[in-house]
Amino acid sequence: MLVQKYKDMLSGKSVIRQLAEYAATRGKEIGYENVFDYSLGNPSVPVPQEFTDAMINMLQTMESSALHGYSPNPGIPSVREAVAASLEKRFGIPYRKEHIFMASGAAGALAHAFRLVTEPGDEILTFAPFFPEYHPYVDLTGAVLKVVPPDTERFQINFDAFREMLNKKVMAVLVNSPNNPSGVVYSEETLKCLAEILREKSVEYGHEIYLISDEPYREIAFDGRQAPCVSSFYDNTIMCYSFSKSLSLPGERIGYVAIHPNCYGAEDMVNMCVQISRGIGHNCPASIIQLAVAQVLERTADLSVYEKNRNLLYDELVRLGFTCVKPDGTFYIFPKALEEDAKEFCRKALKYDLIFVPGDGFGAPGFFRMAYCIDTEKVERSLEALRRFVKEEYGR
Amino acid sequence: MLVQKYKDMLSGKSVIRQLAEYAATRGKEIGYENVFDYSLGNPSVPVPQEFTDAMINMLQTMESSALHGYSPNPGIPSVREAVAASLEKRFGIPYRKEHIFMASGAAGALAHAFRLVTEPGDEILTFAPFFPEYHPYVDLTGAVLKVVPPDTERFQINFDAFREMLNKKVMAVLVNSPNNPSGVVYSEETLKCLAEILREKSVEYGHEIYLISDEPYREIAFDGRQAPCVSSFYDNTIMCYSFSKSLSLPGERIGYVAIHPNCYGAEDMVNMCVQISRGIGHNCPASIIQLAVAQVLERTADLSVYEKNRNLLYDELVRLGFTCVKPDGTFYIFPKALEEDAKEFCRKALKYDLIFVPGDGFGAPGFFRMAYCIDTEKVERSLEALRRFVKEEYGR
Repeated sequence: MLVQKYKDMLSGKSVIRQLAEYAATRGKEIGYENVFDYSLGNPSVPVPQEFTDAMINMLQTMESSALHGYSPNPGIPSVREAVAASLEKRFGIPYRKEHIFMASGAAGALAHAFRLVTEPGDEILTFAPFFPEYHPYVDLTGAVLKVVPPDTERFQINFDAFREMLNKKVMAVLVNSPNNPSGVVYSEETLKCLAEILREKSVEYGHEIYLISDEPYREIAFDGRQAPCVSSFYDNTIMCYSFSKSLSLPGERIGYVAIHPNCYGAEDMVNMCVQISRGIGHNCPASIIQLAVAQVLERTADLSVYEKNRNLLYDELVRLGFTCVKPDGTFYIFPKALEEDAKEFCRKALKYDLIFVPGDGFGAPGFFRMAYCIDTEKVERSLEALRRFVKEEYGR
Repeated sequence: MLVQKYKDMLSGKSVIRQLAEYAATRGKEIGYENVFDYSLGNPSVPVPQEFTDAMINMLQTMESSALHGYSPNPGIPSVREAVAASLEKRFGIPYRKEHIFMASGAAGALAHAFRLVTEPGDEILTFAPFFPEYHPYVDLTGAVLKVVPPDTERFQINFDAFREMLNKKVMAVLVNSPNNPSGVVYSEETLKCLAEILREKSVEYGHEIYLISDEPYREIAFDGRQAPCVSSFYDNTIMCYSFSKSLSLPGERIGYVAIHPNCYGAEDMVNMCVQISRGIGHNCPASIIQLAVAQVLERTADLSVYEKNRNLLYDELVRLGFTCVKPDGTFYIFPKALEEDAKEFCRKALKYDLIFVPGDGFGAPGFFRMAYCIDTEKVERSLEALRRFVKEEYGR
């Protein structure tokens, strides 16, 4: 007999996937260049040349078994060392190899983080708006994801709601800054306040409340600023990183877990990740990809195009009368729809070949997400369609 | 609080890993070339040149987002199609893309297979001697792995013991042929008999009993023979394949699940694998590795060295009076130790810098495993040490 819980999931198709499929179909009719597809967060800028060069060089010069052989379970030691050194240099936190576990992208990293600190029945809190995949990621471990309603003014944290939902069963809090879908970066003030509450409640409840920080967009911050490092504010932080967006290689599935050196249990956690891997069939990212990213830790793809796109879209949206928090990073923007039902709003936008994702799935009904990791030229062309849409449908 | 079950696992260190670490340490003392390290199943022959060429060619010519972009969740469609076509051509079973799920090696494939057909509390039966990692793989899903005692005469299946252990709670049977650690290939007769029992008991218990076939050694068969294809004997078979051994790239984590087209539920199972992935953080093997293996599906590394090593070792072991089933494939041999306690036997062998693994962990006490995926030259040099060991310790 096939397991019913997975069979049941087959009927619930992701809205984002459905929209992306619609965009592909529509693209076949009118040419994909004429579909303003803001549905998917698939990076558009190329991988840095240094990455490609590193790959080719290794393929041409390294001995086969050294390049393609088994990686030790926590990752290749030299790679873990390089990651730790780079994090220490950048954030001033004394990470060592022993705190780094190489993982198959952020999804792989999170799968380990959740299992490190929660048992079935435990609660994990996250903040709307949030990445909808967190639900299956957490729920299928047996833990329970609960979503704190959004601070719709600034998309920082709604601390009143958070305090109300924090209880003894909460073993971890999951944050994502820079944030998908809002594009907002949590401020130092937000992170300080969050850390303070977590420290206070850890004492009150008599157990650590771990902070799991999902940071695939860490490198994509605008206006010359850096996103504050979540781990700097709270020792019991499990950082989950992915190179997918910073290096534009989401298909290569490479990232890591970084345990704060002062985290309670830090000395055991990477080895525990190894045990978790045995249960979930993880067994490391591809060796050659590990070795290649270690050579380009200080590089990123040309991320400036995302800032250019943000500027174009934000300015036009504001000009058209949208209420919109200005993104500090990522390649997402999350404006308020022009009618209460964002699903209806997004449906109407399809007539103008504008593909937006309604905010309902992100825990913020009434808003919609645009993923602007597309060519700037296409963003520019889409503005005319946006103007027509707003004028014809909403008389603005 | 850290999750106790993973913390508890930290104390139980794998015997194989301990021996490999001992070999590495000893190697530093006397030169690794003088340690006859038969502990680890890490392929020694190089990856085929065609694989390297395919990788370099793609890196030099393909557009970045096509090469490194997100793979759809079940794997890249063209790769799945190529795998299906290759399987159909080779085994005459009409696999289609829809039956293929690309996975991170056999471990990733098995993680999906177990979750497809078992819920916590269900039983999976496997046959000794068996790969010890099956225990954490299965046990951490919540299902229960039970091991059928070995047929120590031929290392086929002990059907009497199997029939006794088969009960209504058994949802799947897990086989591994060619087998680690025995090197034996299950005969057509064995597979026919197994299939017959499974069909009979599926009817009796009113539910399918799935056969999960772990086949990383499928391509390594000796004496000009092919290993019989397990899926040809029983429709409800879930094939779990890895390219690690056939292409000598265990670090690149690439394999697949192939659902028999006539399998009960075949139309849903790959999509269910996608749902399972969301819970375990899997999200596909690396894109570039998927695309590269698809170009070398009909190739293998030069596997002839393993047959040469088998011949050298088998002949010498028999000459020295060991009881030993002749391996039909893989790069393992599994002789009977010269005293009852194989652990003691292996401990004594260390004095001669011979690193063997006792059979206890494989479910066959009294035997020991030699992994002969090492240079033939080293195998030849080890024979002298073997002779001295047997003579000095056992007077033969």
